[in-house]
Amino acid sequence: MAIFAAMSELQVYNTLSRKLETFQPINAPFVGMYVCGPTVYSEVHIGNVRTFVSFDLIYRYLKFLGYKVRYVRNITDVGHLLDDSEEDKITRKARLENIEPMEVVQRYTVDFHQTMQAFNTLSPSIEPTATGHLIEQIDLIQRIVDSGLGYESNGSVYFDVQAYNEKEHYGILSGRNIEELISNTRDTDGQEDKRSPLDFAIWKKADPQHIMKWPSPWSVGFPGWHLECSAMSTKYLGTTFDIHGGGMDLKFPHHECEIAQAKAGYGHEPVKYWLHTNMLTFNGRKMAKSEGTGVTPRQLITGDHPLLSQAYDPMTIRFFMLQAHYRSTLDFSDEALQAADKGYRRLMQAIADLDTLQASQNSSLNVAELTDRVKAAMDDDFNSPIAIAHCFEAVKWVNLMKEGKESLNNTDLQSFRNFFKEFVAEVLGLTAASAGESVDKIDGLMQMLIDMRQQAKTARDFATADSIRDQLLELGFVIKDGKEGTTYTMK
Amino acid sequence: MAIFAAMSELQVYNTLSRKLETFQPINAPFVGMYVCGPTVYSEVHIGNVRTFVSFDLIYRYLKFLGYKVRYVRNITDVGHLLDDSEEDKITRKARLENIEPMEVVQRYTVDFHQTMQAFNTLSPSIEPTATGHLIEQIDLIQRIVDSGLGYESNGSVYFDVQAYNEKEHYGILSGRNIEELISNTRDTDGQEDKRSPLDFAIWKKADPQHIMKWPSPWSVGFPGWHLECSAMSTKYLGTTFDIHGGGMDLKFPHHECEIAQAKAGYGHEPVKYWLHTNMLTFNGRKMAKSEGTGVTPRQLITGDHPLLSQAYDPMTIRFFMLQAHYRSTLDFSDEALQAADKGYRRLMQAIADLDTLQASQNSSLNVAELTDRVKAAMDDDFNSPIAIAHCFEAVKWVNLMKEGKESLNNTDLQSFRNFFKEFVAEVLGLTAASAGESVDKIDGLMQMLIDMRQQAKTARDFATADSIRDQLLELGFVIKDGKEGTTYTMK
Repeated sequence: MAIFAAMSELQVYNTLSRKLETFQPINAPFVGMYVCGPTVYSEVHIGNVRTFVSFDLIYRYLKFLGYKVRYVRNITDVGHLLDDSEEDKITRKARLENIEPMEVVQRYTVDFHQTMQAFNTLSPSIEPTATGHLIEQIDLIQRIVDSGLGYESNGSVYFDVQAYNEKEHYGILSGRNIEELISNTRDTDGQEDKRSPLDFAIWKKADPQHIMKWPSPWSVGFPGWHLECSAMSTKYLGTTFDIHGGGMDLKFPHHECEIAQAKAGYGHEPVKYWLHTNMLTFNGRKMAKSEGTGVTPRQLITGDHPLLSQAYDPMTIRFFMLQAHYRSTLDFSDEALQAADKGYRRLMQAIADLDTLQASQNSSLNVAELTDRVKAAMDDDFNSPIAIAHCFEAVKWVNLMKEGKESLNNTDLQSFRNFFKEFVAEVLGLTAASAGESVDKIDGLMQMLIDMRQQAKTARDFATADSIRDQLLELGFVIKDGKEGTTYTMK
Repeated sequence: MAIFAAMSELQVYNTLSRKLETFQPINAPFVGMYVCGPTVYSEVHIGNVRTFVSFDLIYRYLKFLGYKVRYVRNITDVGHLLDDSEEDKITRKARLENIEPMEVVQRYTVDFHQTMQAFNTLSPSIEPTATGHLIEQIDLIQRIVDSGLGYESNGSVYFDVQAYNEKEHYGILSGRNIEELISNTRDTDGQEDKRSPLDFAIWKKADPQHIMKWPSPWSVGFPGWHLECSAMSTKYLGTTFDIHGGGMDLKFPHHECEIAQAKAGYGHEPVKYWLHTNMLTFNGRKMAKSEGTGVTPRQLITGDHPLLSQAYDPMTIRFFMLQAHYRSTLDFSDEALQAADKGYRRLMQAIADLDTLQASQNSSLNVAELTDRVKAAMDDDFNSPIAIAHCFEAVKWVNLMKEGKESLNNTDLQSFRNFFKEFVAEVLGLTAASAGESVDKIDGLMQMLIDMRQQAKTARDFATADSIRDQLLELGFVIKDGKEGTTYTMK
């Protein structure tokens, strides 16, 4: 089957082996992919949006290749502790705003979904929540305790990193070793329950005033953040699955801990391919709210930010993100977004023009060669910037064909059209800007009426031609006849 | 405070007492409201949409009055058994489609949220899922067992309705009594574990092949459907809260069982005011897919249904729903929707015109009297049809002022403007039509093309007529010729 031949070409960069590997799913054509989702205590960070857009591209390309992908992305609604503190991010927000933690969760989950929709990311197949999987998490903690690698201390349960490291390598994913980690550890308060400062909580006993808490064999408390992803990925994808993704800031300690938990609880490596997206900067600097270099998705979309000169369509921002490889850093700036906006519009105009091209007797261009180049770029660890560069070769072709300088025969034109329409819409996930569909429909109807007016003119039926023009004017469309043919504007 | 004076005027019809009662929240200005949400195994039924639009109106009006409302609406993602069967609705769909039950849940949860957004309903404050509250449900089952009103039988746990009825009245909400219920019971298979056919499962032991199951003190299984609402409303609103709502088909047995569970588990009435919405019909008949009288929200919005002549904007449908009181049945029909569409547009035009009105020296109209009438209608058990009728009085005023036949001074014009803008947008939840303008433009262009096709037919130029039809089809417009003229639908 052609599709399986194509499959074997895909190379992915595996953080675990630090090299490109041929993608071979455990149980093709099925692929299991888990991506760490947001902690829903504030508006999603634009860096997270980039991560989710990157995995959306990966999800879409795997589907394009014919894989049946189960894509699981979680919602962290409990247990994500603030650094060096015993407080959970969501509980803190709820305390500050004097509402129920689950109201914080609901508000920012809705906001997250709306943002993801604006950027045209597909919904994951399953979107499990940490609070929805307490029983599964308690089961995994019990397994870890039974394996001898978890210990209870004053109602909390900790993972024994040193004991684990005697058998396995703690730090295998991020390339660290335990001696180095120990020497970098500072003494912090509230650590006296642990055998070693490297140990991490898999269950925390709750203070009496804590709201989000559940009964367990050890105490009334809540699960550690690292634990939820292990429990939920196992529930929906099995104890070993194909792809685990996330931002590179999650490599250590979050993903390192996931590996340790899975090995302790289930006895083997949880993941075949670990994929990590790189970071964002803004005007060359790390984004930090305190320095005024932070920018939210909403600010980009509305243009409401001192360093932005205009509002950007979410499709422009998506296009801009895809113009960098997911493993490269990406620098946002007003100028770069303006350039991306032009490029995006040029690409979409060419896609719209595809329908107007006429077939010729002969082909002067090699369609298969160009589409192969696009696929080869994507097969090279989802290299969207190179794939987009080849799409702009196609844009050039469209314009040359419009001018009559190049031609395609009927078969070639069909495959050219089909491939680029599908690739741009279904793989890159780019659609005509927001009010897209209606605009397309209006455009289609206008083309029909402009053609009919032209026919009337050719047949010297000026009454009909004028009547069409006048009726359109009444509806708010102004027709202009020019050298390049007839165009229109909407009032 | 003005706001508290206003509060005491609100009357709500309480299903439990079968009469209008003055609304007095347990802990004003806070109000707790729980509404039974969808079972996410298929596209949401238009009858459910009406229920959620009705409670959206109630939520919005309570907020308008100044109450701080915590609105909880659940998602049923497990445990909703099919009638006379041991199979769960979601598990059955997953089995038929050969996917994981949580993939079914995700697909239809996303679809539900998109539909709710289209109808401009506000997100509830908290949207808990049944699978997210297993621990809480198991805790409630244990309480019911401890109270002597629940019994275990072969790993399942049942609620003992007859024992409960010795102390309390089972049927109090729906006006039934146990003798009548017993005499109406038929013998069905799979009931041998129960002491009485009236008893209902609060925990079901799962078959080995069952996917959605969890450990419990009684068996590996899953909770009964009635149980989740008791557990989740208690968790987020307390053991007694102000308002519980749902469609009237849920009165019995679902809400009746909730009352029984709460009294057994927590020892008192769970809810102060029970509110129920009435049913929908379509062309005067109960909607039933099998009879072709079913219509989905998507069909109404696209017009893709044999009994609809056109697509309807979700705002038109919302307006149509609000033109009936939530406790009245509502009959959908193409004609009624067309009339609603005209009314809705007239109302929105007047709202837009408000900004163009000029103040005069004197007022010839009594603004306070009209706004009081609108509020009085809403205070009368949320009587939106009467409130809307008074809004049309305001529409008349706007048009008379435009013609210079009536006038308002500056102060009166301000309060007239502010009240009606806020009431229509924030309480009725009506905004300018979604893609309104584009839809109008598309409609204008379509009328031109339909006329031109008709002219071609009249001139016996069938080639042109057919070409118009074919080109429109390609753009996604389906033309239908009928007795009343030519209409179209959008794919």
